Amino acid sequence: MNALGLVSMRLCAGLMGRRSAVNLPFLRFSSGMTLSQIDEEVAKLLQLKAQLGGDEGKHVFVLKTAKGTRDYNPKQMAIREKVFNIIVSSFKRHGAETIDTPVFELKETLTGKYGEDSKLIYDLKDQGGELLSLRYDLTVPFARYLAMNKITNIKRYHIAKVYRRDNPAMTRGRYREFYQCDFDIAGQYDAMIPDAECLKIVYEILHELDLGDFRIKVNDRRILDGMFAVCGVPDEKFRTICSTVDKLDKMAWEDVKKEMVNEKGLPEDVADQIGQYVSMQGGQDLAERLLQDPKLSQNKQACAGLTDMKLLFSYLQLFQVTDKVVFDLSLARGLDYYTGVIYEAILSQTIPAPVSTPTEQNGADEGGVSVGSVAGGGRYDGLVGMFDPKGRKVPCVGVSIGIERIFSIMEQKAEMSSEKVRTTETQVLVASAQKNLLEERLKLTNELWNAGIKAEVLYKKNPKLLSQLQHCEETGIPLVAILGEQELKDGVVKLRNVASREEVDVPRTDLVDEIKKRTL
Amino acid sequence: MNALGLVSMRLCAGLMGRRSAVNLPFLRFSSGMTLSQIDEEVAKLLQLKAQLGGDEGKHVFVLKTAKGTRDYNPKQMAIREKVFNIIVSSFKRHGAETIDTPVFELKETLTGKYGEDSKLIYDLKDQGGELLSLRYDLTVPFARYLAMNKITNIKRYHIAKVYRRDNPAMTRGRYREFYQCDFDIAGQYDAMIPDAECLKIVYEILHELDLGDFRIKVNDRRILDGMFAVCGVPDEKFRTICSTVDKLDKMAWEDVKKEMVNEKGLPEDVADQIGQYVSMQGGQDLAERLLQDPKLSQNKQACAGLTDMKLLFSYLQLFQVTDKVVFDLSLARGLDYYTGVIYEAILSQTIPAPVSTPTEQNGADEGGVSVGSVAGGGRYDGLVGMFDPKGRKVPCVGVSIGIERIFSIMEQKAEMSSEKVRTTETQVLVASAQKNLLEERLKLTNELWNAGIKAEVLYKKNPKLLSQLQHCEETGIPLVAILGEQELKDGVVKLRNVASREEVDVPRTDLVDEIKKRTL
Repeated sequence: MNALGLVSMRLCAGLMGRRSAVNLPFLRFSSGMTLSQIDEEVAKLLQLKAQLGGDEGKHVFVLKTAKGTRDYNPKQMAIREKVFNIIVSSFKRHGAETIDTPVFELKETLTGKYGEDSKLIYDLKDQGGELLSLRYDLTVPFARYLAMNKITNIKRYHIAKVYRRDNPAMTRGRYREFYQCDFDIAGQYDAMIPDAECLKIVYEILHELDLGDFRIKVNDRRILDGMFAVCGVPDEKFRTICSTVDKLDKMAWEDVKKEMVNEKGLPEDVADQIGQYVSMQGGQDLAERLLQDPKLSQNKQACAGLTDMKLLFSYLQLFQVTDKVVFDLSLARGLDYYTGVIYEAILSQTIPAPVSTPTEQNGADEGGVSVGSVAGGGRYDGLVGMFDPKGRKVPCVGVSIGIERIFSIMEQKAEMSSEKVRTTETQVLVASAQKNLLEERLKLTNELWNAGIKAEVLYKKNPKLLSQLQHCEETGIPLVAILGEQELKDGVVKLRNVASREEVDVPRTDLVDEIKKRTL
Repeated sequence: MNALGLVSMRLCAGLMGRRSAVNLPFLRFSSGMTLSQIDEEVAKLLQLKAQLGGDEGKHVFVLKTAKGTRDYNPKQMAIREKVFNIIVSSFKRHGAETIDTPVFELKETLTGKYGEDSKLIYDLKDQGGELLSLRYDLTVPFARYLAMNKITNIKRYHIAKVYRRDNPAMTRGRYREFYQCDFDIAGQYDAMIPDAECLKIVYEILHELDLGDFRIKVNDRRILDGMFAVCGVPDEKFRTICSTVDKLDKMAWEDVKKEMVNEKGLPEDVADQIGQYVSMQGGQDLAERLLQDPKLSQNKQACAGLTDMKLLFSYLQLFQVTDKVVFDLSLARGLDYYTGVIYEAILSQTIPAPVSTPTEQNGADEGGVSVGSVAGGGRYDGLVGMFDPKGRKVPCVGVSIGIERIFSIMEQKAEMSSEKVRTTETQVLVASAQKNLLEERLKLTNELWNAGIKAEVLYKKNPKLLSQLQHCEETGIPLVAILGEQELKDGVVKLRNVASREEVDVPRTDLVDEIKKRTL
């Protein structure tokens, strides 16, 4: 930070002298800058410096990815592939199709869908075309897709990156560009059956990813609204009080109450009544008990939600997932578009949080998702209607798996494990101990490729045998096919097992089968 | 178009009356507007209308994807998955790892890499952070990745979307958001070995995709530059004449010559000399012949290129791909960063081009890629050095498969074929002919999921057997597991083959094995 600060100061000084010659429309300094804002200004200055030609009149690049984003190296990609395979297998096991939508949408498509979070949307520059924004989630593009194609029922999954101009906390798996794995069921169906299947899927995936114990909290927007009504919260404060309730997974009740009373202007006794409800957790029994609650039972919304909750739990029992699902009245979730059941999955094992930097402490809240939360979703019966010219509704329920945190955990696991993560699937390296055999090596490699064998050959005319063996050790290639003058004469190849160092002569005609047999 | 025009006019009239109240910074009308510009203005007006609340004070959405982009529906995704599988299999067979980079880069990272095409880069709006642009290809982010991580050798593939503000021609598979499948080999190796492998990969992929006959044209930037030099083209005109040569796949020589002489100011005899060279096509023999060419043989660059071309063809012979590879002196390719071998693959079978609209005729050229071109690449030994603070070079060679056109052909093929494209992999539908068996259906479905069977169940309490069977017919589910009171009592399930309508009672304990056996 100190070094950067110095650079920034030197740059500023340098720029001042040039100001007359340069237009600096994007530099806005103010005394109230946060550290993260300063970082961004420094990056801009460095870019500008590069454009101007730098100190010595030569191009100096800022060698970095954009703030809050990262590259995936081959090891991380290997882990990502493993995670995706588990998730996609589950989605396919449940009969889902998949779709894809563009990374940007008309700005208007995203407007009015995300409440306060709309400020986090990335806009594209107006370059004389349509006004565009990067997608913020996969749900709104999905609803737009359904309305545009007049689709009234579909079960689809969609795995893609979404974009949020949030304050990143990358060590905790919070990025500005991150993957979502969404599974949604759209259509007019009997109550709670698709909702239960979504929870079954979350259960399956978290179980198969083997990330330790987890819990899935369930609630219903109608129960929340009914609860607010019977406690005496004015209608117009439902959403903002909902946001405050949503903080209960990170804040103590006392602090949440303070926010309700001091910031949101709720009478203390109203807050206290809410406090009693939101401390409740249970299962089907709790839903039954609350249906008898003298206050809640008077509210139509709450009753509808509680009746559905009872039904949901009966299906969850059939799906054998009730050991992990909790009906939790404190679950609120941030997004505007939910209309019924909502849920969120939390890992018990959390990532050891590094000492947070001041930047991160200043960070905005990521839509009310607590650390450890890895999946969330719910029912949104009104969203498609917002896009339909005639307002036709298509009821939807879905779940979104947030895999960046899962990646972080898997990466840590891989690092701690002694087992090496392979980043290629190469079965055999074609090698030689003697000189002038490049052509023979290429010819054999070509034979193996044509037979569907994953084979590599070093791109050197005369590589040393040792460096060829080292390449196998480093990348985990299990076999080496060694060619020499004698082998060529005998019509054989020396097949070496890299781990055991055993070598056998294999007739060239049997080589493909032998490699296949050994690398099943 | 007429309807849109009317809307646009009505909107304009409506807006004029409101102008005092609204800021319209993005509306720029001019008499010289093209149809595509008008379309974009209409879209903006419609968005504005929606923001203002529309005619009746209610939100009216423009239900479309951004210009030049498209959604992929489940059928298209099934085809996409098939194409990707073939491509990734080939990349993996050649021992490649994979990486991923963010969809946007610092604007500066892309500056100065694409020549004239830089105007097609999408910029993000300055929302108070870094200046960002959407990636234009995968090659520049790859070079940035190598320099940033000080990687001096890697063989990697990267499949991702790239973005170009080009004039779309979507019926011909030309989009503003499109996939590239890149395979690159970075590292200091002996000449032409990795280059030959790239061509082998193009050959394999096009062969396996089964898209009919194809050809791979090969040339070398050094041969082109040498040719220009010996013909008398001034140094500073090499790049612009190169761009003109690149049009030979779409324009007759006479027109290309006219552009050279009239627009680029080349003396006619210089153009004629170029004309003689660029009409040459051949193989290793042509490289040998040109090495004896009295003029070319005097040029160091050309000799180096021709010697390497000879060597390349000797490796291509070992890889058994020379039947499709042509040394073609007219191949130039648009991008600035190539330094050695360049190549491009062309399908003989082209997509039947629909009558082009005026918008498309006005369209800019897509980086010199002809219709029918599905892959291209080459050697770029200087690009990584542009990012390295010390200018350290990492030689690279690679290929990019442009799959949108391949998708278009595959989609057409699928439409013409009688075979139905399945969009799910569901093996069995759990059904019932009787009422009140929802719970039993869910229970059995759960058993199947837990055993890894891909199973669906209709989300209705009492669906009709006919509608359950119809769902199977429509989506291609091969089996139905039918439950009834009798079956439950007998501990069996009636397993029905949807195609043959045969039914057999299977003991419940054998059901999983029986389904697996029948859906191998």
